[in-house]
Amino acid sequence: MKIAVLGTGTVGQTIAGKLESLGHDVMMGTRDPKATLAREKPDGFGRPPLKEWMTGHGSVRLGTYAEAAAHGELLVNATHGVASLEALAAAGKENINDKVLLDISNPLDLSKGFPPTLTISNTDSLGEQIQRAYPKAKVVKSLNTLSAFLMVAPSLLPEAHNLFISGNDEGAKNKVKALLYSFGWKEADLIDLGDITTARGTEQWLPLWARLMGTLKTERFNLRIVQGSVPH
Amino acid sequence: MKIAVLGTGTVGQTIAGKLESLGHDVMMGTRDPKATLAREKPDGFGRPPLKEWMTGHGSVRLGTYAEAAAHGELLVNATHGVASLEALAAAGKENINDKVLLDISNPLDLSKGFPPTLTISNTDSLGEQIQRAYPKAKVVKSLNTLSAFLMVAPSLLPEAHNLFISGNDEGAKNKVKALLYSFGWKEADLIDLGDITTARGTEQWLPLWARLMGTLKTERFNLRIVQGSVPH
Repeated sequence: MKIAVLGTGTVGQTIAGKLESLGHDVMMGTRDPKATLAREKPDGFGRPPLKEWMTGHGSVRLGTYAEAAAHGELLVNATHGVASLEALAAAGKENINDKVLLDISNPLDLSKGFPPTLTISNTDSLGEQIQRAYPKAKVVKSLNTLSAFLMVAPSLLPEAHNLFISGNDEGAKNKVKALLYSFGWKEADLIDLGDITTARGTEQWLPLWARLMGTLKTERFNLRIVQGSVPH
Repeated sequence: MKIAVLGTGTVGQTIAGKLESLGHDVMMGTRDPKATLAREKPDGFGRPPLKEWMTGHGSVRLGTYAEAAAHGELLVNATHGVASLEALAAAGKENINDKVLLDISNPLDLSKGFPPTLTISNTDSLGEQIQRAYPKAKVVKSLNTLSAFLMVAPSLLPEAHNLFISGNDEGAKNKVKALLYSFGWKEADLIDLGDITTARGTEQWLPLWARLMGTLKTERFNLRIVQGSVPH
């Protein structure tokens, strides 16, 4: 499938790399491809410049947000949450159109360090804001509750764990589920929370996730919902 | 131990009943004990009047918030989060003093129905507000992440699951942990997140908890953190 991955950070690279390995035709989108490719030094997080990553992922192309969004039949928003609406505006309504938009972003404000606060929360969510801004698009929120490397390799954890899905369109959710299965997620791992307003639940998991990361001193964790239908 | 349970709702009854069964000397606190005992009809949630509950729990006494707080060497805040600061003000600074205050409340605004929003979130938490209002008290936030009946009977779920603890005082956290062990929690189940500011993490779990309850159609669930130290 032709897929656009908006955002070239850790999440974007991880998703784009996995999609490439699965045989998809992937274009990553960024604000200014020339500037992104001109970077020679690691970024503020110590990540190698994108140019290096791209040499190991020969079939993945890089374009503007608009070029990538025009390319993709399915779009993945892997930009930082605080920049997502701007990135999508640059992608353009006409390119987003009525496509499935898998939104992985979280509205994290890291400007005051760690743990982050949320720029949107409680009575709204970034998933909903994106859906409202692009009413024709089929926004599906998922994968935003765990570390990038676990998104595409859930079996790295020793037990089954859960992933949530929110969105208004059942067909779009089924397309995203099919993608998730190809990443290694199992049907029993996925919890469909309902419409896009349920993204308020998963985005507000991040404050606990961040504190767990601080306590456990690893990003290699996720939650599993333990349910008991009968007492024992 | 002499324990005060502030609040006579489901959480208060569940905690007080469990503490009684463990041999503690429990006084429940409410705003107006006479009015509470005069109720003859089920409340808005269909729960039987407290008078009925108390006939089955003969050693548990009922007093004002101030009487209960004066009685307790350890205090449990089991009031509704939106009423907690008022209840604690009625309990009185002199009665709260430097005692351990186990805070189970969540700042849930249910005035617009379900799922609730939070009246405090993101950059603050109810746990912190209580700690700031009573700086001598040793506030420990715990048990606020799951249903009342699971708080005192964790083995009702078929697998191990986790409980979080937040608070500034290590000695107070150890006292609360001892109480939790007596409820059936195991040391390996408890995750000490750090100081009271980490209550922001657990209180913001509630929005996801509420949506999971809506999806799973049960309160009989909790989360388990699945961690992987080595790939497999």
